[in-house]
Amino acid sequence: MTGGLPVLPRNAKADGKPRAGGGAPIFLRFPALRSACLMVKSPGMSVSDLLPAPATGRFIAAVHHFPLRVYFEDTDLSGLVYHANYLRYMERARSDMLRIAGIDQRANLEGGEGVYAVTDLQLHYRRPARLDDELMVVSRVTKVGAASCSIHQTVMRDEEILTQGDVSVAFLTPQGRPRRQPKPWTDIFSRLMRGEDINL
Amino acid sequence: MTGGLPVLPRNAKADGKPRAGGGAPIFLRFPALRSACLMVKSPGMSVSDLLPAPATGRFIAAVHHFPLRVYFEDTDLSGLVYHANYLRYMERARSDMLRIAGIDQRANLEGGEGVYAVTDLQLHYRRPARLDDELMVVSRVTKVGAASCSIHQTVMRDEEILTQGDVSVAFLTPQGRPRRQPKPWTDIFSRLMRGEDINL
Amino acid sequence: MTGGLPVLPRNAKADGKPRAGGGAPIFLRFPALRSACLMVKSPGMSVSDLLPAPATGRFIAAVHHFPLRVYFEDTDLSGLVYHANYLRYMERARSDMLRIAGIDQRANLEGGEGVYAVTDLQLHYRRPARLDDELMVVSRVTKVGAASCSIHQTVMRDEEILTQGDVSVAFLTPQGRPRRQPKPWTDIFSRLMRGEDINL
Amino acid sequence: MTGGLPVLPRNAKADGKPRAGGGAPIFLRFPALRSACLMVKSPGMSVSDLLPAPATGRFIAAVHHFPLRVYFEDTDLSGLVYHANYLRYMERARSDMLRIAGIDQRANLEGGEGVYAVTDLQLHYRRPARLDDELMVVSRVTKVGAASCSIHQTVMRDEEILTQGDVSVAFLTPQGRPRRQPKPWTDIFSRLMRGEDINL
Repeated sequence: MTGGLPVLPRNAKADGKPRAGGGAPIFLRFPALRSACLMVKSPGMSVSDLLPAPATGRFIAAVHHFPLRVYFEDTDLSGLVYHANYLRYMERARSDMLRIAGIDQRANLEGGEGVYAVTDLQLHYRRPARLDDELMVVSRVTKVGAASCSIHQTVMRDEEILTQGDVSVAFLTPQGRPRRQPKPWTDIFSRLMRGEDINL
Repeated sequence: MTGGLPVLPRNAKADGKPRAGGGAPIFLRFPALRSACLMVKSPGMSVSDLLPAPATGRFIAAVHHFPLRVYFEDTDLSGLVYHANYLRYMERARSDMLRIAGIDQRANLEGGEGVYAVTDLQLHYRRPARLDDELMVVSRVTKVGAASCSIHQTVMRDEEILTQGDVSVAFLTPQGRPRRQPKPWTDIFSRLMRGEDINL
Repeated sequence: MTGGLPVLPRNAKADGKPRAGGGAPIFLRFPALRSACLMVKSPGMSVSDLLPAPATGRFIAAVHHFPLRVYFEDTDLSGLVYHANYLRYMERARSDMLRIAGIDQRANLEGGEGVYAVTDLQLHYRRPARLDDELMVVSRVTKVGAASCSIHQTVMRDEEILTQGDVSVAFLTPQGRPRRQPKPWTDIFSRLMRGEDINL
Repeated sequence: MTGGLPVLPRNAKADGKPRAGGGAPIFLRFPALRSACLMVKSPGMSVSDLLPAPATGRFIAAVHHFPLRVYFEDTDLSGLVYHANYLRYMERARSDMLRIAGIDQRANLEGGEGVYAVTDLQLHYRRPARLDDELMVVSRVTKVGAASCSIHQTVMRDEEILTQGDVSVAFLTPQGRPRRQPKPWTDIFSRLMRGEDINL
């Protein structure tokens, strides 16, 4: 997201270094973008600073907020969001929550450590969501076990509660057996459950 | 998105007015959030300013950029993004492109005007995407007809092209017949095709 | 599904009449199929009798059984079926149950009568399903109200219970208000709840 | 799929042997089913013979036919099948084609051999599908390479072509590199491409 060269799309790598020469071929492919450089005024700014980023949730105190928008893929012929898709929204929110709390699910999965699986869920649908709606998934940790965790999640549109429920997950080995969660993770969940501000 | 009252979740309505008394019940529901008010320092700022917003694309000159992240729902057992899901990504990007260019698909659908349907597509898959990847869908209008439109779309991860292709859509009546697109829309598409900066 | 002419694909229309001349263009398109006619021996048999049909459930007494197979689209990178997809399976089973009990959801939706929406669900995941698994969704009506209905559903693989839960649905007007279900439907649900054999 | 004991759901294991005692707990769980036994007349028949099976495609000569039905999950708010879902239908058909031609994708994936990935696709949408429609995916092998294969696929409703296109797939190692397909598979694909009847 930083870097002195005007590079597109943004090359915000983990190490913060832009890839050498990354900009050139893009400009050949998208000559119309050349003018975008004119929008870059200050010396430390690059075209990549203009690029939008994916939605990312945020903890406010110990409560996680994850925003999303409803697209065609989410609706069914009733004109409303298909009921199973709220589970996709809630899973995106939980994954984002883990990610910004410092838990890397992909690394754990690829390293053979384990993966979370849903074991129980309870959902109450109160009002429907529609195309283009901006929704917010609000998530709170409510229970932490050695190998499991429960989360209360609410899908809201402004102040309206659309769907709310509880989801329990278990940490499993790649073979599907319950496994004790890593200690640093249990610590994070415990802090969240007590309402501590994870940003501090 | 602004407003003097600390209201959660944000009540950015079309008219910009906060809903009266909207804040109270939220704080009863999420008492842990009360502390969030302490983060609000300046007089014109509210808790709602702290809330994240859904991903929104951006035109850079006439080229639309839409960011997204890969979630569990997008992958299959090969560990990679399931091939059909790139079409969902590309459709999100096209919908966002229309929306920020001022075209309201939902209003047109609900008003019985019509809806866009995909008529042809051609996709070339070059590299796979994986869980947690940040992707960018880059879209350019390449052809505009009376009742149709073609768009070139590229799904990128940093400078890498993962998938690219061309999508043609037709504007249809609710009964499924081709219908001339509204004149202001054709004008927008024509400007984009000529590479004009839609932000100006 | 029968008919004297060898027509492909099968032209089992509601009225049982084959479309005139329907066979010819297919054979031009798929010349290799011509040999299939040789498999048709008996005078009353046509090529269309060779064609497979979509999965259809069956009531055994008052218990509905719906079979399905797991495909790539259903799995995620853990190698297992993504948790939200069990809801898709269960909805297919409920739709099939209504259809073979004589309730036409599409006609009711298109006629502006109303549509069922899920209001509550409770799911317990016990064992995972994997690619290629043959599953059976077993459904029983457990409660019938004026505008609602509850169904107990179990997703099984042979004798193993994989996922089980309860789903409540409400019949809604197109505007989203609860509406009394048509009397013949309530009668069907009541008979099913009492365990009567719907086939008799 | 047969077996002397009335067992539910059917216990058609690869070895054809019913699991010992499998029937009892099911009858405790579903007492209403007991009456189903009365439907079983002939001595060699069991309740499991009454159970429906998942949709399975069929080769007619060298052309594969795969049937399916449209459910709520497949539609979007336009009332029609969402365009990306035709790719799911086509993938189900390809997987079924491989399976009944004797190619076990899951075993190959789990054994670390490799997996097919889509590299190119071209789709033309002509008419829409709607809820409850019975569709047929008709698939023909059109090209066979050392590490790749091309298939022409048509989604039909009776004699109408709804969507048609070409899909190319590559066989990849788990690390994502192209790998030569096993010789027996190339032989199958070559026979299918020449129009040979795979059933013979």
